[in-house]
Amino acid sequence: ITSKLPGHSTSIFTVMTQMALKHGAVNLSQGYPNFETDKELKDLVSKAMNDGYNQYAPLAGIQPLREQIVEKIENLHGKRYDRDSEVTVTNGATQALYLAITAFVRAGDEVIVLKPAYDSYEPAIAFAEGTPVPIQLEGKNYKLDFKTLKEKINSKTRMLIINTPHNPSGNVFSKDEMTQLENLLKDTNVILLSDEVYEHIIFDEEKHWSASSFPHLSKRAIICASFGKTFHNTGWKMGYCVAPEELMVEMQKVMEVNVFCVHHPTQRAFAEYLKMPSHYLELGTFYQEKRNKFLDLIRDTGFRAVPSKGTYFQLVDYSEISTEPDVDFSRRLITEYGIASIPVSVFNKDQLDYRQLRFCFAKTDETLEKAGEILSGIK
Amino acid sequence: ITSKLPGHSTSIFTVMTQMALKHGAVNLSQGYPNFETDKELKDLVSKAMNDGYNQYAPLAGIQPLREQIVEKIENLHGKRYDRDSEVTVTNGATQALYLAITAFVRAGDEVIVLKPAYDSYEPAIAFAEGTPVPIQLEGKNYKLDFKTLKEKINSKTRMLIINTPHNPSGNVFSKDEMTQLENLLKDTNVILLSDEVYEHIIFDEEKHWSASSFPHLSKRAIICASFGKTFHNTGWKMGYCVAPEELMVEMQKVMEVNVFCVHHPTQRAFAEYLKMPSHYLELGTFYQEKRNKFLDLIRDTGFRAVPSKGTYFQLVDYSEISTEPDVDFSRRLITEYGIASIPVSVFNKDQLDYRQLRFCFAKTDETLEKAGEILSGIK
Ligand SMILES: CSCCC(=O)C(=O)O
Ligand SMILES: CSCCC(=O)C(=O)O
Repeated sequence: ITSKLPGHSTSIFTVMTQMALKHGAVNLSQGYPNFETDKELKDLVSKAMNDGYNQYAPLAGIQPLREQIVEKIENLHGKRYDRDSEVTVTNGATQALYLAITAFVRAGDEVIVLKPAYDSYEPAIAFAEGTPVPIQLEGKNYKLDFKTLKEKINSKTRMLIINTPHNPSGNVFSKDEMTQLENLLKDTNVILLSDEVYEHIIFDEEKHWSASSFPHLSKRAIICASFGKTFHNTGWKMGYCVAPEELMVEMQKVMEVNVFCVHHPTQRAFAEYLKMPSHYLELGTFYQEKRNKFLDLIRDTGFRAVPSKGTYFQLVDYSEISTEPDVDFSRRLITEYGIASIPVSVFNKDQLDYRQLRFCFAKTDETLEKAGEILSGIK
Repeated sequence: ITSKLPGHSTSIFTVMTQMALKHGAVNLSQGYPNFETDKELKDLVSKAMNDGYNQYAPLAGIQPLREQIVEKIENLHGKRYDRDSEVTVTNGATQALYLAITAFVRAGDEVIVLKPAYDSYEPAIAFAEGTPVPIQLEGKNYKLDFKTLKEKINSKTRMLIINTPHNPSGNVFSKDEMTQLENLLKDTNVILLSDEVYEHIIFDEEKHWSASSFPHLSKRAIICASFGKTFHNTGWKMGYCVAPEELMVEMQKVMEVNVFCVHHPTQRAFAEYLKMPSHYLELGTFYQEKRNKFLDLIRDTGFRAVPSKGTYFQLVDYSEISTEPDVDFSRRLITEYGIASIPVSVFNKDQLDYRQLRFCFAKTDETLEKAGEILSGIK
């Protein structure tokens, strides 16, 4: 047996969550809420089962859910996708990203990845035998340098992956940046894979600019979204993607042989739930309070928060406390102090000199307070 | 945009189910039960949600479910898989098959496929850039000729896919055939991908011989199984695979970037449900009655049943009625007579002169009776 991904080891999220369990540590590593999804939504899944929606759904997802998705996007971003040919409901946004990469990336194709980057992009590119072309996001604000981006695009560039709001930094592309992107890609054949799973977790006066609201971007864009992150049920593994029909057709070929379709009763539940007043519009406020609480709790410690505009993650710089590499430091925080985080360098294997950790603050106030107490004791 | 699967069109199951809906036809095409899954099992999903199992499951699936799976296999086939390294819970058996093919098949590798074959195997091989090597199952009983198999195996053969009980024919490999397979593969590097999704749907005095119960086969085998087909909930999209650790490690790398994990509350429900007395042991009897009912209903028609030993499908030969190709005949049955089936040639694009249709009898007695009435009227 020879491996297609010889160097690849267990997901950092699995490793960290297991270590946290083993050491009874407060777990701010893997990104998921430790509070409950809406009872009403659970009841809708039960209702769907009892109403008999227990056999295969259509490959693209059930029509009423696709309808809700296209209406939501139209309301928020002014772009109307075709319900019947431009939407697919997937096993989480992870699968949506996978479908896009697998449908379009071939041996020798280049895929530009902005680093640090979510850890599923590059292995998916590797399975498709594409070549990831990393670009480092720069400075404290993890800014994209458009000059560098322009230089990296060539005739082999098949795809550019962006992630806004950005995991792990919490940076968000401004309207101006999206427009620059639009101008830059206009005369290329590059597909834009836009990971927008934290679209509703936006703070302060910021706004999420979806690739769907820029006409020349949306023509070439595959947009991936997540119900789990919006409705506090990451374990229901439901997300979706939208894209122009000529792209979606190819992704659905992968969908068909990959899983055929996803959990039918859960689709019914979301289709009903999304008809109700849009809870997710308050998600930014909800998470901003969590974020502010976390910032308050670490204010008098040696940990320095990196400015952020969205997501349920907070990067903190620990260089006042330790010069250890982040992988070692984060392990020591679990075993010696009982708190689990994610070392940023796992999102960026090319650059291992970070002195930053990522904390997930999608946690109950009680958990955040415990975390604050522990962090206050680390000097 | 150039397609990786240029010729590939919409799944036959989607096409036929949509046509059936449009024409108000009795739908015996796509394989799924039109009766309900156990209320107790649905309640267990609801309970799991209310108990708070709504965030990510571990990548391989939750431990108690993996434990139930290894115990079940040990009880039935005498082989104990390692719960922690040799099992993965998947988005249906379709995903299990996909993981196996994607993890091990490379450009230029040959994969032997026994035709007619389930329609996801070959496109999955194509995405991995492998070459499917078809072998025709022969005669009325769709027998595998082991001499032909032996001839097809060479140094490029990476994988052999078997499916027992076999969709669409209902044929089942005997102990003797499995032993022949074991002897034939013993000195090769071929991985056996064993699709055993209809394992519990076996008729008369037949027995299902799993690849797991043959020591030299299980060493090289990836076995794929389905909860949906066993527990009447194909729309919950849950299945699993077992394989020796050195194979499973590679499949889990694909799992991680493909979907990460599957629906957590449903996993909890199956973990509880599988502890109870083994309902599935009566599944053969249950479906045998359905099968016999269907055979009775078509006894006095021009449709001739092809002998079968398992699955919830029945092939019927219509050559006494029509000389039309099966694709045309099956369409005409929908539009003119109001009954939907699957033309066998879609499982076998190399051989288009079948005069056989596949009917799914996983239907209520009422539906079967309606089907019988319609079929009696076709001369
Ligand atoms: C699928 S586990 C990873 C969860 C996540 O999105 C993260 O922690 O970044
Ligand atoms: C995923 S739809 C196909 C269902 C099935 O297994 C069949 O009809 O053969």
